[in-house]
Amino acid sequence: VEKIPQPVIKRICMIYQLLNEMLGSGHTTVSSSELGTRLGIGSHNVRKDISCLDGVKSGGAGYDIVNLKNAIAEKFGFAEQKAACVVGLGRIGTAFLQHAHNVKSEFRVVAGFDSNTNRIETIKTTISVYPAYQISEIAQRLTILIAILTVPDSAAQDAANRLIEGGVKGIINFTDTNLVIRRDDVFVKNMDVTGEMRMLSALIRMDKNN
Amino acid sequence: VEKIPQPVIKRICMIYQLLNEMLGSGHTTVSSSELGTRLGIGSHNVRKDISCLDGVKSGGAGYDIVNLKNAIAEKFGFAEQKAACVVGLGRIGTAFLQHAHNVKSEFRVVAGFDSNTNRIETIKTTISVYPAYQISEIAQRLTILIAILTVPDSAAQDAANRLIEGGVKGIINFTDTNLVIRRDDVFVKNMDVTGEMRMLSALIRMDKNN
Repeated sequence: VEKIPQPVIKRICMIYQLLNEMLGSGHTTVSSSELGTRLGIGSHNVRKDISCLDGVKSGGAGYDIVNLKNAIAEKFGFAEQKAACVVGLGRIGTAFLQHAHNVKSEFRVVAGFDSNTNRIETIKTTISVYPAYQISEIAQRLTILIAILTVPDSAAQDAANRLIEGGVKGIINFTDTNLVIRRDDVFVKNMDVTGEMRMLSALIRMDKNN
Repeated sequence: VEKIPQPVIKRICMIYQLLNEMLGSGHTTVSSSELGTRLGIGSHNVRKDISCLDGVKSGGAGYDIVNLKNAIAEKFGFAEQKAACVVGLGRIGTAFLQHAHNVKSEFRVVAGFDSNTNRIETIKTTISVYPAYQISEIAQRLTILIAILTVPDSAAQDAANRLIEGGVKGIINFTDTNLVIRRDDVFVKNMDVTGEMRMLSALIRMDKNN
């Protein structure tokens, strides 16, 4: 099997998201040029990306949205539910914990962690919560694949190390810490809100100056 | 003045973030190759990016971190405090509202909005909160530049329209809705956690298969 480059995987995930929205608004087919326009990439690249998938054909009206969506889900294993956890149960972490059981989604939050034992004892949630020192042990036992990291910045690296030790392969990092990851089979997505606001403000300012 | 391309602006913002961290851990100088390695880009590109800034010189030991950081802040106007707001005061929105006055940062959250008037009346916060129909009016009056959008998906486009009408130029979008923005002076950053988890899971799976 040929290796799909990471940028292609990311673009196909964006296509998947877009297809979901189009289905929601009643569309049934879509052309590569429409996908390209909405994603800001050329239709040629869209077709090349989609050619990585198995059994997808483009008819006269373009791609059948349900077929294309299913082909992506099949390729990337989206149908299998994955275990996730939340590390750091402050306001944002707790929000994700409470959210978890509303969503009948591909991700099931199976555990929460916090270093504050008092918080562990008093938090109101139906999800099991554990002290932070148990992260590796519990992550391994529950085969947690992905973690949402919402600890204070100073605790981020230590929590990430414990998660990786426990077999976690993906981290959604809500802290402002740039995690140092020494393994190439672990993926991190930084969700640094202050940094993103700063980037927006730079784009806005430079746009005004032009 | 020459126009700085958006990807360059984004990379310089990433450099800024990295310099902050390096200062925090006691560094005083940094080379372009070290910056490049830590950001996953070539040192040539780092030097080219930095050449967009005014008055930055590289000595034998590389760049002086404080100087470089100040030059970026100057160029992009980071020193000026900007007004921000939170639209949608559920758990995550409320978390940002509460966070706001802890942070003596470049962004000051000056307003919160929610369509639920009962919530507006009962929420505990020192930030002023308003009903959603006042978004445009208040955004204009308080010259709000950036909004954090945490409403339910179905309300996202309407809230974005009101924000833009009120002069907001940047939106941090926490909803799963792909906002349709018909103006090129408005910038959106999507913070779709489910989508990011899905993307991580795809990267993890394809990594395993290779």
